Amino acid sequence: MLIIMRPGARKVETQAVIARIESQGLAAHPIYGEEHTVIGAVGDGRPVNRDQFILMDGVDRVVPISRPFKLASREFSPQDSAFPLNGVSIDPGHVVIIAGPCSVESRSQILEAAHAVKEAGAHALRGGAFKPRTSPYSFQGMGEEGLELLAEAREQTGLPIVTEVMTPEQIPLIAKYADMLQIGARNMQNYSLLKAVGECERSVLIKRGLSSTIDELLMAAEYVLSKGNRRVVLCERGIRTFETATRNTTDINAIPVIKSQTHLPVILDPSHGTGHWEYVTAIARAGIAAGADGLMIEVHPDPDNALSDGGQSLKPERFAEMVLQVKAIAEAVGKKLAPIQ
Amino acid sequence: MLIIMRPGARKVETQAVIARIESQGLAAHPIYGEEHTVIGAVGDGRPVNRDQFILMDGVDRVVPISRPFKLASREFSPQDSAFPLNGVSIDPGHVVIIAGPCSVESRSQILEAAHAVKEAGAHALRGGAFKPRTSPYSFQGMGEEGLELLAEAREQTGLPIVTEVMTPEQIPLIAKYADMLQIGARNMQNYSLLKAVGECERSVLIKRGLSSTIDELLMAAEYVLSKGNRRVVLCERGIRTFETATRNTTDINAIPVIKSQTHLPVILDPSHGTGHWEYVTAIARAGIAAGADGLMIEVHPDPDNALSDGGQSLKPERFAEMVLQVKAIAEAVGKKLAPIQ
Amino acid sequence: MLIIMRPGARKVETQAVIARIESQGLAAHPIYGEEHTVIGAVGDGRPVNRDQFILMDGVDRVVPISRPFKLASREFSPQDSAFPLNGVSIDPGHVVIIAGPCSVESRSQILEAAHAVKEAGAHALRGGAFKPRTSPYSFQGMGEEGLELLAEAREQTGLPIVTEVMTPEQIPLIAKYADMLQIGARNMQNYSLLKAVGECERSVLIKRGLSSTIDELLMAAEYVLSKGNRRVVLCERGIRTFETATRNTTDINAIPVIKSQTHLPVILDPSHGTGHWEYVTAIARAGIAAGADGLMIEVHPDPDNALSDGGQSLKPERFAEMVLQVKAIAEAVGKKLAPIQ
Amino acid sequence: MLIIMRPGARKVETQAVIARIESQGLAAHPIYGEEHTVIGAVGDGRPVNRDQFILMDGVDRVVPISRPFKLASREFSPQDSAFPLNGVSIDPGHVVIIAGPCSVESRSQILEAAHAVKEAGAHALRGGAFKPRTSPYSFQGMGEEGLELLAEAREQTGLPIVTEVMTPEQIPLIAKYADMLQIGARNMQNYSLLKAVGECERSVLIKRGLSSTIDELLMAAEYVLSKGNRRVVLCERGIRTFETATRNTTDINAIPVIKSQTHLPVILDPSHGTGHWEYVTAIARAGIAAGADGLMIEVHPDPDNALSDGGQSLKPERFAEMVLQVKAIAEAVGKKLAPIQ
Repeated sequence: MLIIMRPGARKVETQAVIARIESQGLAAHPIYGEEHTVIGAVGDGRPVNRDQFILMDGVDRVVPISRPFKLASREFSPQDSAFPLNGVSIDPGHVVIIAGPCSVESRSQILEAAHAVKEAGAHALRGGAFKPRTSPYSFQGMGEEGLELLAEAREQTGLPIVTEVMTPEQIPLIAKYADMLQIGARNMQNYSLLKAVGECERSVLIKRGLSSTIDELLMAAEYVLSKGNRRVVLCERGIRTFETATRNTTDINAIPVIKSQTHLPVILDPSHGTGHWEYVTAIARAGIAAGADGLMIEVHPDPDNALSDGGQSLKPERFAEMVLQVKAIAEAVGKKLAPIQ
Repeated sequence: MLIIMRPGARKVETQAVIARIESQGLAAHPIYGEEHTVIGAVGDGRPVNRDQFILMDGVDRVVPISRPFKLASREFSPQDSAFPLNGVSIDPGHVVIIAGPCSVESRSQILEAAHAVKEAGAHALRGGAFKPRTSPYSFQGMGEEGLELLAEAREQTGLPIVTEVMTPEQIPLIAKYADMLQIGARNMQNYSLLKAVGECERSVLIKRGLSSTIDELLMAAEYVLSKGNRRVVLCERGIRTFETATRNTTDINAIPVIKSQTHLPVILDPSHGTGHWEYVTAIARAGIAAGADGLMIEVHPDPDNALSDGGQSLKPERFAEMVLQVKAIAEAVGKKLAPIQ
Repeated sequence: MLIIMRPGARKVETQAVIARIESQGLAAHPIYGEEHTVIGAVGDGRPVNRDQFILMDGVDRVVPISRPFKLASREFSPQDSAFPLNGVSIDPGHVVIIAGPCSVESRSQILEAAHAVKEAGAHALRGGAFKPRTSPYSFQGMGEEGLELLAEAREQTGLPIVTEVMTPEQIPLIAKYADMLQIGARNMQNYSLLKAVGECERSVLIKRGLSSTIDELLMAAEYVLSKGNRRVVLCERGIRTFETATRNTTDINAIPVIKSQTHLPVILDPSHGTGHWEYVTAIARAGIAAGADGLMIEVHPDPDNALSDGGQSLKPERFAEMVLQVKAIAEAVGKKLAPIQ
Repeated sequence: MLIIMRPGARKVETQAVIARIESQGLAAHPIYGEEHTVIGAVGDGRPVNRDQFILMDGVDRVVPISRPFKLASREFSPQDSAFPLNGVSIDPGHVVIIAGPCSVESRSQILEAAHAVKEAGAHALRGGAFKPRTSPYSFQGMGEEGLELLAEAREQTGLPIVTEVMTPEQIPLIAKYADMLQIGARNMQNYSLLKAVGECERSVLIKRGLSSTIDELLMAAEYVLSKGNRRVVLCERGIRTFETATRNTTDINAIPVIKSQTHLPVILDPSHGTGHWEYVTAIARAGIAAGADGLMIEVHPDPDNALSDGGQSLKPERFAEMVLQVKAIAEAVGKKLAPIQ
């Protein structure tokens, strides 16, 4: 930690900061500059409370030096993480495509979607059984019946299942059916939920919050990792900005930034990132070109009649075309689509 | 709902939209403009799925007309809501001040804080027993022991207790001790939690999410109201923007905007809104001047050694000075501080 | 400047950074921490190019220590600036109100507006003769004829004139008529224009850019100050965020932050800050409560027929009511409205 | 235009709106809904002042229907624009790469840069002679001497020159030397400048403002087009958001959105979009994958000693590698790099 004194800070103020640094068992290293005095506080890596210095007289600001995440960091694990998802290999040489409808709406809808995305080349099936909705009056999901339908779809197609979990107490039920538990964007800082999936056997997909920084996303992963679950995938899905032409702003920069800071796999969700089906394919291509390890795509057999997110869902034939285009981009960056079992 | 066709949309496309409107039991009212055709879809107020029109050929965009919230709206209840909080009247003529530390840290800390804020003129005591923290390695709160200390502080001072609830299963425990349940900013769209507090007997304080719109805040209130709990207070606590000079950007506009759209009381939290104690008093004054019904302020007897949020906490003597200044502003806008029992 | 090395940076990399620091005539002060080595570079206050260090092998990031603005800083001039504007005293004990229409539209409009705001208690008249408009097809202002009408309004009412200047070459013409030159939000980083008004005799009002940080606003002021013109007023007018309920988000935090960093006067423009006349009075009160030195308000005798910004303009009688309310707030914070001549 | 009345608006209020619509020579089409009355105002395409309706009693909001830009729109010109830039073809089938240093710093620097980017495959040379800088104390560019050096670089390499223009009066001088005039992000709404380049013979590159919407970027283009200059290229260069891990947030969505709304070519500047050289290549690939017509890249022969933007500049050998990778992506989306003369 570096404590930067105000210009004109008095000598006794600087001495008080040094004394407090030392009282914490840290070593103090003052640098006396032309305008500012800066005091380095060197310890053994244990967290130190920044606030106790910010409030001292004469202190201008405190600059933390160490990154707040450990297990998620590249320094902790220089090599990219790799793990299997019910037979599909998630690893840095391959592109994984998770696809399916926003919500499970009926047996015929989810089975039709599952077969369509399987045929087009998807590696896993997404579909919500418990849905977070802005309005209490909107469709809230089919619940356990939806989970059963997802399991039936897996049985028919072999596709592993990715579905959202909203509260800690839902986990045992959902883990019975799903291969990967999704933490939705609105729950990215629901720490009770993060701890609970960290103690679970299933892979976890963490979607970035609408206004969460990359550092906060990595801290959310750190919660899961710190409880022992190492099979974590991160998902960029667009952030909230002033631009209203699209539902969210896909933070494409986040792909290479996250890859440089963590060993965890990173995928892109261009359906939420744009909010309009007509832009999904272009942004899917961009994500893979930027280095993403996979994609999450909303596909609906009949988007016009979808109960949620119809406007950003691809029809199966457009999804099939997208897979072909993404395959060409993957090859241009020296990767392959993950093999289909 | 209004469906706006693209310039040059074909006649059959417009007819298909009209046919679908009518198939939903709605009346279609086309307006043929110079560039665009606009079709009004008039119904009986039941929600209609927008997405089914967005995806139709020739459609440019769909403009919703009705507001998505009902019970929270001014139209539903033109008069300002008013209700008692354990003896303190929350109503439009009075300013209520909730104060206390970010976290309950020890018996002496919370009792000292409670007496100090009581003496300075606060109406309720805040303090977290279960804390959402960005890092899994940070202090996570004292849990039930913290709740017991809050109850002891209430016994000694008479101040009602406001404390945060993070998961549905914590509610029975926390409701045993607390007078008002706080939904934190990161949980504003945790719908499972909103439904659960909606079924509870306690008053609810909903803090606006860091990147939530005012409409979304009102929809969060709608979740609680729709489950039968009408004692809801909203809290503006700063939003996330590009400006980094302050921790958040206090959205002062939100005060009059929210007051114009809902009958629910609205308070301001300038501690989180600014993130720096030296700006808290100025923004507290601004909030009351803008029409807020109250304030939520972080006060710590020894901010230098606080376990969380020390940098934005006021010392008791600065808080007492703040109350005096806020009182003067309240009077300048024709209000009074809520009476102290 | 502090150069923070990556964890695991090699010794030769650290030595290369030290060598380059010293080759610039600066002193290098390394601090060897558990994870990171930090190197302080101490000089004589002359600017040093940060980029040359960012790119060196083993460097993680570079933290600047000195503030980039000098003449605008509180350290340079601890006392609040004060200066007269054609008889009106701009100083920290008084609140100054600048009011008038967005654009000068006709002789009768501007004269009617001038008399109305004068009567209600305004201290200066605003009105645009050259208008920056988003669309090339919108009304672009009356030009020199508008300036002549403003001068006539000043003659009749005694109110000093504030009007916008858009290019360096307009300055001689506009300075002939106006008492204060306004730099619009979209030109806040038009450095050619800032330099040109810095060389001019007139007071300058700088409006904060829609996405400019407070630091950048102060750097814009520094451009003007560095050319010799010390009569600069800053104006917060709302920033662009994700919230769409209002035209902009009034950054009320900016008022106390700016006051703490600079000696220059700061005013608030709640008309642009909110974009809706019905919220203007509440936010005007909030601005003065937060410590602003004045207000800039759009007032139009007939907002329904205004050629620009009608929706955010107050009618004269509402403006008169606003002045009364602002007066009460000013007194509650120990200030007075500036005396009327 | 659609005028939406408040719930409960009185009949006389609705009638007053209808009367005003008709008094403007427009036809009024009321739709009476369950909660709201909506009134369509149909005209002949001439602009109508929205504000005059917003302020009327009983009006809730006004929804514009027509897009504000005409000449820039896809409707005006369904086919993609194409034009030559001193021998380089800017057209939808090719990818154009503009590269070079942020600023012209010396004869040897710009000539070395020019030869290096030419050899690596660039199609045009960028370099600033007049530089907008946040600080008045930073290097402001070499001025006319820089322009002469750019011309010499063109003579030696054949590369057309792209350079920034900051004020209308600089245009004749800069147009003497440059092939394409760049409007910088901070000047995107400098309307005097936009009009002036619109009257000039040179191609124009408009960089999107840091907080400008896509609509506003298209309106900036409309200013230039409306003055008769049709050779306009748009450039996405990152917007300002809450994320601080990168200098700006590259709005990759903007590429397909802009392509869908306008016929003008769109290029991406990943150097400013990210602000860190190590992310530039990944985002350059993403831009072409998303459908951009070209790239603008900062390249410096010795970034460590660059006078500006060194941290985001590529070294020539890294740029050469980037061109190879971009070529592969271009081919994957069915395009080619523009031919080298």
